[in-house]
Amino acid sequence: MSEAPGRVDDEHARLVFDVFAQACTSRVTLEHVTGRWGILAMAALRDGTLRFNALRRRVGGVSEKMLAQTLQALERDGFVRRDAQPTIPPKVEYSLTKSGAKTAELLMGLIDFVESQMPEVMEANARYDAAKGL
Amino acid sequence: MSEAPGRVDDEHARLVFDVFAQACTSRVTLEHVTGRWGILAMAALRDGTLRFNALRRRVGGVSEKMLAQTLQALERDGFVRRDAQPTIPPKVEYSLTKSGAKTAELLMGLIDFVESQMPEVMEANARYDAAKGL
Repeated sequence: MSEAPGRVDDEHARLVFDVFAQACTSRVTLEHVTGRWGILAMAALRDGTLRFNALRRRVGGVSEKMLAQTLQALERDGFVRRDAQPTIPPKVEYSLTKSGAKTAELLMGLIDFVESQMPEVMEANARYDAAKGL
Repeated sequence: MSEAPGRVDDEHARLVFDVFAQACTSRVTLEHVTGRWGILAMAALRDGTLRFNALRRRVGGVSEKMLAQTLQALERDGFVRRDAQPTIPPKVEYSLTKSGAKTAELLMGLIDFVESQMPEVMEANARYDAAKGL
């Protein structure tokens, strides 16, 4: 079977993405899921489908505009599903897709570890500041 | 055994950190390890000890100033160790601490998954843009 010109086989395509390369599109996607609000929105949606305002309450401190932008980027990347029901007023719900759920699971592992490390982190902060005379 | 006033037992301390709370210090730490440059610096250091310039070459696109700030925050949190040898010129090397290595392992799992998902992400991007008439 001959290959059409310009066709990239799947195996190969999976090898060429590298977040360490400045121009690689995977870096943008990584930033969407690890960004200040992206990581919290994804983790919050692990609890299940949420309406916009419920999600906003869960992600303490996010503005309406920033949460909307964050969800739009995550929806565009296929990690979050947006369901708008044609009711009055419209009911808009957000949930994780399959790949979003896997990503959120990995993020939650990271969050859990960081939270568990906080006593040590605060000790390290104090030691560092003392050594610098701060 | 009576407890001294103000003493927080370890078990309790581990329960009070919550990245979803706007004012929780754990959110700052999470941002250090998931920030644009923090995540890449941590992942790069999984390969072993690196001097500043080698690390900068690995993390494509980072400025000297941003990398220095990033490493300083990670050192202060106890994730990165900075070893300065009193040679001329001074030799400064960075490596992961034990908690840094565990964090970097979790970050690498996330990076690997995001890179592996990129063909699907790009398809999702195209579908989203087409649906919006972009």
